[in-house]
Amino acid sequence: MPEIRQNMATKEWVIIATERAKRPKDFVGKKAEETIPEFDEKCPFCPGNEKLAPPATFEIKDGDKWILRSVPNKFPALSPEGGRSRKFDGIHRSMNGVGIHEVIVETPIHNKFIAFMTEGDVFNIVQAYKTRYTELQKDERVEHIIIFKNHGAAAGTSLIHPHSQVIALPLVPQMVRERVRESMSYYDDNGTCVYCEMMNLELKEKTRVILENDSFVAFCPYASFGPFHMWILPKRHMGQFSEINEVEMKDLARTLKIVLTKLHIGLNNPDYNLVVRCLPTDYHKTDFFHWYIAIVPRLTKSAGFELGTGMFINVTLPEENAEFLRNVAI
Amino acid sequence: MPEIRQNMATKEWVIIATERAKRPKDFVGKKAEETIPEFDEKCPFCPGNEKLAPPATFEIKDGDKWILRSVPNKFPALSPEGGRSRKFDGIHRSMNGVGIHEVIVETPIHNKFIAFMTEGDVFNIVQAYKTRYTELQKDERVEHIIIFKNHGAAAGTSLIHPHSQVIALPLVPQMVRERVRESMSYYDDNGTCVYCEMMNLELKEKTRVILENDSFVAFCPYASFGPFHMWILPKRHMGQFSEINEVEMKDLARTLKIVLTKLHIGLNNPDYNLVVRCLPTDYHKTDFFHWYIAIVPRLTKSAGFELGTGMFINVTLPEENAEFLRNVAI
Repeated sequence: MPEIRQNMATKEWVIIATERAKRPKDFVGKKAEETIPEFDEKCPFCPGNEKLAPPATFEIKDGDKWILRSVPNKFPALSPEGGRSRKFDGIHRSMNGVGIHEVIVETPIHNKFIAFMTEGDVFNIVQAYKTRYTELQKDERVEHIIIFKNHGAAAGTSLIHPHSQVIALPLVPQMVRERVRESMSYYDDNGTCVYCEMMNLELKEKTRVILENDSFVAFCPYASFGPFHMWILPKRHMGQFSEINEVEMKDLARTLKIVLTKLHIGLNNPDYNLVVRCLPTDYHKTDFFHWYIAIVPRLTKSAGFELGTGMFINVTLPEENAEFLRNVAI
Repeated sequence: MPEIRQNMATKEWVIIATERAKRPKDFVGKKAEETIPEFDEKCPFCPGNEKLAPPATFEIKDGDKWILRSVPNKFPALSPEGGRSRKFDGIHRSMNGVGIHEVIVETPIHNKFIAFMTEGDVFNIVQAYKTRYTELQKDERVEHIIIFKNHGAAAGTSLIHPHSQVIALPLVPQMVRERVRESMSYYDDNGTCVYCEMMNLELKEKTRVILENDSFVAFCPYASFGPFHMWILPKRHMGQFSEINEVEMKDLARTLKIVLTKLHIGLNNPDYNLVVRCLPTDYHKTDFFHWYIAIVPRLTKSAGFELGTGMFINVTLPEENAEFLRNVAI
């Protein structure tokens, strides 16, 4: 009998389709790993091509050379110039496409995926996330900031060179508004943050936990909407990524390094998206919402059912996926 | 300057990214059309292989031979047996995976896409949609029914043989609940159905309309979330697909035949999803919601930004897409 599970925080339902069940090893990539060079002269993110992008907004250097840099996107989805304004006239409901769109080039080395980085390298990425998030949060036009990473073609990127992106929006997306509403409603009913609650229950049950350290827990959510879908939650309750402290930044770097290396080794470098989910920028010190990182490997395709319902059909068991990842030696 | 547009019915925002703008012709498929045979003995939907699926729930015949049939999915996402029951215990929030999952085999001919069908053939598909929708709506366990079609690998199907699917769910998906809430709220504020309103405004403005007949309007929505995204709305206000009458069924068949043929010819057989969006089954005679069909060609990939925000970045102008489709001669 298939089972329909609900994520207690987002309230989203997912079908766990046991009739179509696949095992974790069915998702191990068959492709031979292509040889990617350390340097590609045509890559806009490789050293020497800095002039192809606008000047950096943030850099970490080792002597004269940069080892991480954040640059405005050369083809931004939103424009950094101008103010916010809404025009509403019948069907024409629009606003200026104002916002900030940056690319964080995570390393000068073209083929150095997080799986191949040191914890120190990953710490630099976390620092860039925090610095840019904190800075963009100050912009009065910005209502919501999303930090994300697309790894591989199926995850929507054609650029191999390791990079993340930051988009600062002049509005709060409906999905975010809905999640804030759900967590607020849980807080009303229970007096606790639903994300704290969920993390504690996952830690108690253990079957879906991939790893735990002083500051973070990584697990495959009970209602994962796809194979090897992971959440990384900070143990300390915080709504904004900018609240992360130095010790937590180190622990997050270690956590990301471990889970992404397990993914790389265990499934043979699958394509994936990584997203940092925070509150809208205007919220501070809230008791009801908790930032977290979602990692979604792109191992299945979404189709008409997902489009029409917003629900997903997961052909794997989160418990088996977590066990598989726990057992990947790195 | 990019523009952020809001769909007046769903209230969803989309970024129209003019800095990355592409023209309609950039999406014309480059691939040579592969030669697909009329019959494939390995195809589970081709005549002679009927025994591979459970017995049909609906058939249209021409003499002794079937020309359309609906069969239970051999690997259903949900099981037709058993009752609805919810188990809620901490993080374990689940219900029995009970529901109905059928496949509508649209034609016995393996390579007869809707673009190659007669209007009569497409009428049969519409009739199957109506018959199965009406029947499944009677099941007391069913709260929502979604009819959809996946055409091509990028749209999530590996089966070439033309088919649609019907999934009857024992719950109302969050996305549907949210859309009902938005349309109800518009009705409260304005006293009219927001979908009727939107259609009237599109007809008045004309720039995004692809075609209009006595019963239907096909257009690229003002806030289309991707290239050649289309909505087909019935002119008569109805919340449930089962309310469609004989004349409207003929007009819908003609509408689908035309827009899907234009898509096939204009863009060289792109992969697409088609979804019939209705009210939850329990609603009847509502003034605030209107069923419609969405057609979403899979020409771009969704990535971390879409995952994290639920918003989309559209690199084309809906007005140009509609003009392009109007001009495709069929």
